[in-house]
Amino acid sequence: MSELGSLPCVKNTVSVKTITDCQGAWEGAKSAMELYEKLTAQGDHVRALKTAKAEKAEIEAAVQLLLKLKVDYKHVTGQDYKPGCPPSENCVAADNGPAADDSDDEDIVDPWNVSTKNAKGVDYDKLIVRFGSNKIDKELVDRIERLGGQKPHHYLRRGIFFSHRDVHQVLDAYEKKKSFYLYTGRGPSTQAMHVGHLVPFIFTKWLQDVFDVPLVIQMTDDEKYLWKDLTLDDCHHFAVENAKDIIACGFDVNKTFVFSDLDYMGASPEFYRNVVKAQKHVTFNQVKGIFGFTDSDCIGKISFPAIQAAPAFSNSFPQIFGTRKDVHCLVPCAIDQDPYFRMTRDVAPRIGYHKPALLHSTFFPALQGAQTKMSASNPNSSIFLTDTPKQIKNKINKHAFSGGKDTVEEHRKHGGNPEIDVSFMYLTFFLEDDEQLEKIRQDYSSGALLTGELKKILIETLQPIIAQHQERRKQITDDVVKQFMTPRPLNFKF
Amino acid sequence: MSELGSLPCVKNTVSVKTITDCQGAWEGAKSAMELYEKLTAQGDHVRALKTAKAEKAEIEAAVQLLLKLKVDYKHVTGQDYKPGCPPSENCVAADNGPAADDSDDEDIVDPWNVSTKNAKGVDYDKLIVRFGSNKIDKELVDRIERLGGQKPHHYLRRGIFFSHRDVHQVLDAYEKKKSFYLYTGRGPSTQAMHVGHLVPFIFTKWLQDVFDVPLVIQMTDDEKYLWKDLTLDDCHHFAVENAKDIIACGFDVNKTFVFSDLDYMGASPEFYRNVVKAQKHVTFNQVKGIFGFTDSDCIGKISFPAIQAAPAFSNSFPQIFGTRKDVHCLVPCAIDQDPYFRMTRDVAPRIGYHKPALLHSTFFPALQGAQTKMSASNPNSSIFLTDTPKQIKNKINKHAFSGGKDTVEEHRKHGGNPEIDVSFMYLTFFLEDDEQLEKIRQDYSSGALLTGELKKILIETLQPIIAQHQERRKQITDDVVKQFMTPRPLNFKF
Repeated sequence: MSELGSLPCVKNTVSVKTITDCQGAWEGAKSAMELYEKLTAQGDHVRALKTAKAEKAEIEAAVQLLLKLKVDYKHVTGQDYKPGCPPSENCVAADNGPAADDSDDEDIVDPWNVSTKNAKGVDYDKLIVRFGSNKIDKELVDRIERLGGQKPHHYLRRGIFFSHRDVHQVLDAYEKKKSFYLYTGRGPSTQAMHVGHLVPFIFTKWLQDVFDVPLVIQMTDDEKYLWKDLTLDDCHHFAVENAKDIIACGFDVNKTFVFSDLDYMGASPEFYRNVVKAQKHVTFNQVKGIFGFTDSDCIGKISFPAIQAAPAFSNSFPQIFGTRKDVHCLVPCAIDQDPYFRMTRDVAPRIGYHKPALLHSTFFPALQGAQTKMSASNPNSSIFLTDTPKQIKNKINKHAFSGGKDTVEEHRKHGGNPEIDVSFMYLTFFLEDDEQLEKIRQDYSSGALLTGELKKILIETLQPIIAQHQERRKQITDDVVKQFMTPRPLNFKF
Repeated sequence: MSELGSLPCVKNTVSVKTITDCQGAWEGAKSAMELYEKLTAQGDHVRALKTAKAEKAEIEAAVQLLLKLKVDYKHVTGQDYKPGCPPSENCVAADNGPAADDSDDEDIVDPWNVSTKNAKGVDYDKLIVRFGSNKIDKELVDRIERLGGQKPHHYLRRGIFFSHRDVHQVLDAYEKKKSFYLYTGRGPSTQAMHVGHLVPFIFTKWLQDVFDVPLVIQMTDDEKYLWKDLTLDDCHHFAVENAKDIIACGFDVNKTFVFSDLDYMGASPEFYRNVVKAQKHVTFNQVKGIFGFTDSDCIGKISFPAIQAAPAFSNSFPQIFGTRKDVHCLVPCAIDQDPYFRMTRDVAPRIGYHKPALLHSTFFPALQGAQTKMSASNPNSSIFLTDTPKQIKNKINKHAFSGGKDTVEEHRKHGGNPEIDVSFMYLTFFLEDDEQLEKIRQDYSSGALLTGELKKILIETLQPIIAQHQERRKQITDDVVKQFMTPRPLNFKF
């Protein structure tokens, strides 16, 4: 049965990458006008569908696109979209006009966009329902602990990895002494990685240590070339530089293969064969539904999802797995990557492979708050891996959105709100001690702990983590990264 | 300026690959009904466009598709399409009903379909106008003779290669002692190649001998996998087997690189880089316009044209050309491949490369006549490279469509028509002696030469050609083909 067809809410999950993303253009009058015209057309389209009593799923997909365009429009113009009032005319921004829908507060989550209007961040429980994945429940965490023989990672304990697909099947295989492998990746669009980018790698490293399995890490430099205004050489360079930061998380060269698509596609006929297999079994209609591609998108984008699918099939790596095509694959990733793997899971059984299992993480919030956008071009939107202790201190003190009250008096009286406090959120990612974290939460909520004090704890937590990362990264020479990126057998027998 | 935009008639050239091709299904009630429904919808669409006074180009493209569907429908059902009369009902086939257009006699020429209603074959002069290419005139033939120092090949003398793009630029470069290279290819969908398949290779071999330049030959096994109901291993096997037949044309291993896409994509990062570059610069809208892809096509088909484009850029072959990206490329091919290279020529300057030049050949007719379709699944539709002398004799005597009269008496009195006589057409391809061919033409036209006698000449011409080919092919061992297909430097300095 089709994985895509079996997701009752799959149309809901269709968020749409807009022209603004492809062009990396959140600014500019032209983009605003383009968006306005798209919005007007989409509004008409939604009304037409409703009038024509179109299928519910189709209407929902159209509404989803409309919402997405509205969010984009507000980003670009700073104003809400108002029908009949194009951006060049100096309209007074009204509150949201009559919407063609009633789900304006829905979060947007896809590989190119994550947006929410909620300061607490995306509603992940709703996302699980919409995506049709499974919550990581106590039973699963306990099973991982039992099988791995390790206390669960705090990302599991705290629900930072919160959702999954078919992880029990991987654990079943593991229990039967059949190995599996881990697959994760990164899109190298910039040299500047921030602490949030490390989250999937920190967790993947823990999984690898616990289960002692091979790991492949895909650097999608081809994707970044297709999506961004960058040269192939830029993207490949970023891939290698980002790989150094990833390797600095402590990966073992005997157990880990890092690859750039631009290199590996041209080095592995087996990988290309799986790419072509996937490309044969996915239509444009499907990627349009899953990723929101349009007829104006380049054919490279349209076919790219197959390239992110291929590493989920073990025979894409004959140097590691020989001819084995049945080694189970487990993909830890942020949940915005789920559309790629829904597609992969739909394709897999049709070309004779296992579906990959998934572990989904929440998103790492921007310093300015969970509803704002982190951006490599805004150095104040996050803590970067190259930041000095002083920069870390200043950024947190100056920019970390506070859940505290306006005055010390009020704060002492009413307490702060850790659920919307970015410093507290960051601590959930980087302060491992559960008791200490719980005490901070209570003290901050009660007002015993002031915002400045909370920020100080975060600063003192992050400074050594970043400094140690920088120290380890210095050791990752060009030679070391080359070793990791050379196709070769790993220390596992298959 | 855009190559595509600059072709005034480019919309006319858009022929549309239909579902029947993808499914290889010229038979079957389901296909017929699908076609009927498509036709009905397309007829409505054309009328709607006309009512809405849509742009001329758009209407023409829609009409072109309509025509194409009608031809397909007749192929499948043996009847003309009649609105309101689906194929399952036993309608009496009427003459063409009222058409939504007035260009019903237009030939269809694209990479997947060649069809004409004219027994003389496609009207190539019209095709030149529609495609916006240039006729190979006496001036060009003379120049090739002057520069190459050889009597022009009979394919040039007889207009079998009849159309070109920018060949003068390649010859300008050659005159300035700058080298160029040749690129041609084959889609290996079957082990059974017929004599017509050799035409581009025979001519390419001649060009290579005359100008002493490198040659790359692409076997699009990936494309065949994407289009046909074949496994990857089938397609790759056909690529290697077909390569043997191609090599048997006499190519020099020191000057010729034959590659399977499935192998070479996974062996050359430089090739993949050019594929991605092309994929970034072509939209779905464009391939829809050029190739007639639809939303139901798989993403592999949609992105494939970039893979046929990449070999036209010299730095796709660093083992041959080093880092040189400016070596001119000349592509000899049948004119149905032109859409690929129109796209390539549109992309080339935008990614910093020369446009490839082209030499277009006419089509090799089926034994049953120029308006019928050759098919690997019908052994009687052509002379295959594996045919015995006896098979050749029987096929020609039994199946070669004759332009002669019904009785000897009538034939002697009125003469035959060589323009529609397939035996005569085949002789234009394989009988090198101009004088002898002209005498045959005259004698046949006058009635002095009977159909049986003409067929005998063809049989005696083809039997030794095929026998010699089979002899040479025997020498092409797996080792030899492996040498040709190994990426390596050739005997040229760049």
